[in-house]
Amino acid sequence: MRVAVVKNILDANSKIAAENRKLFDNNNLLVINLMSSPGAGKTTLLEKLGEALRDQLRIGVVEGDIQSTLDAERIVSAGLEAVQIETDGACHLDANMIQNALNDLNLAELDLLVIENVGNLVCPAEFNVGEDHKVMMLSVTEGDDKPYKYPLMFKESSVLLISKTDLLPYLRCDIDKIKEAALSINPRLTIFEISSYTGQGLADWHNWLQDRIRKK
Amino acid sequence: MRVAVVKNILDANSKIAAENRKLFDNNNLLVINLMSSPGAGKTTLLEKLGEALRDQLRIGVVEGDIQSTLDAERIVSAGLEAVQIETDGACHLDANMIQNALNDLNLAELDLLVIENVGNLVCPAEFNVGEDHKVMMLSVTEGDDKPYKYPLMFKESSVLLISKTDLLPYLRCDIDKIKEAALSINPRLTIFEISSYTGQGLADWHNWLQDRIRKK
Repeated sequence: MRVAVVKNILDANSKIAAENRKLFDNNNLLVINLMSSPGAGKTTLLEKLGEALRDQLRIGVVEGDIQSTLDAERIVSAGLEAVQIETDGACHLDANMIQNALNDLNLAELDLLVIENVGNLVCPAEFNVGEDHKVMMLSVTEGDDKPYKYPLMFKESSVLLISKTDLLPYLRCDIDKIKEAALSINPRLTIFEISSYTGQGLADWHNWLQDRIRKK
Repeated sequence: MRVAVVKNILDANSKIAAENRKLFDNNNLLVINLMSSPGAGKTTLLEKLGEALRDQLRIGVVEGDIQSTLDAERIVSAGLEAVQIETDGACHLDANMIQNALNDLNLAELDLLVIENVGNLVCPAEFNVGEDHKVMMLSVTEGDDKPYKYPLMFKESSVLLISKTDLLPYLRCDIDKIKEAALSINPRLTIFEISSYTGQGLADWHNWLQDRIRKK
């Protein structure tokens, strides 16, 4: 009974996700669904993206938060356009929430839309929202055993950004173990090691995005 | 419609949680529901608890993981009794999962049972499992804005363990801001600053547990 209910919810979600995707494609708009645990550095990553590319690209952000508009305020301060979704308790964004938020964006004027999901390494990976790519972040502070413990997000993502590498000297975390485990779950993952603090790896990640924008 | 379904699930959960609680009380057993984001240090905390108190207390652990038995193996290596729940995708433990796991424990022989929940700062806080106290961890690496963004877990918990304080010199994180925000959401929170690496704060946290065990 409960399984049937969950299946209905996911079916309804897929239908709306397909509608969103069509709208994105019609506007030649690359859409990224950005996911991670709380505090892996999603918002800081977007601030750095804004600093690097806001003069070349028109970038919009949909900010998903359970409560507060703190992140959307940071995104606007970084010179990007932001729409806030407060989920009021819900642990992930779904396609319907995104569809509603799109009313507040002029998609034809954008080159890139990033959907910053709720900080949660589990539930967001279950819900397509119509994105071209799921991109996940894992901070080295979370430890090198995480791919085995939370496999779905690694399985669903096109890109893994291993963040906060500047902290590696102070941690017992083997970054090669993270990469090996992640690739064993999803051999097609593109992996970048990044630090928003030192700037390591950000240019490669931005190049990856720009390549996909050109091809869209 | 969907709200009604969720309400039914929570009602059913509360009923089983009350049965669990009665069983715990009948055995004078203190039960802690330990929650945090992935990688905040729950399992390491339990390893340290085992090292410090396994000669004085009989401690059992229920290990909740979406997949893998990595954590349960670490707990057994630390000399504690562990029962594994693999949730097979589910993002939290509920009262029914705990009730089933209790068959594998001799409650009358335990002084303390710790339920290590799935790493998730959102969903586990919605489900009582019959525990005496919810205890949450927040790593300083997650940033000082988290209480405002994920308020429910702070609201539901008796104790906040702010972990990985040894990393503070390398972070832009104001620990006083965390405490102020957390107490503004839940003024009755007991807060300990801890580092499982240096040992800071662990004795105070262990004393808190031992006081509650004596009173139970």
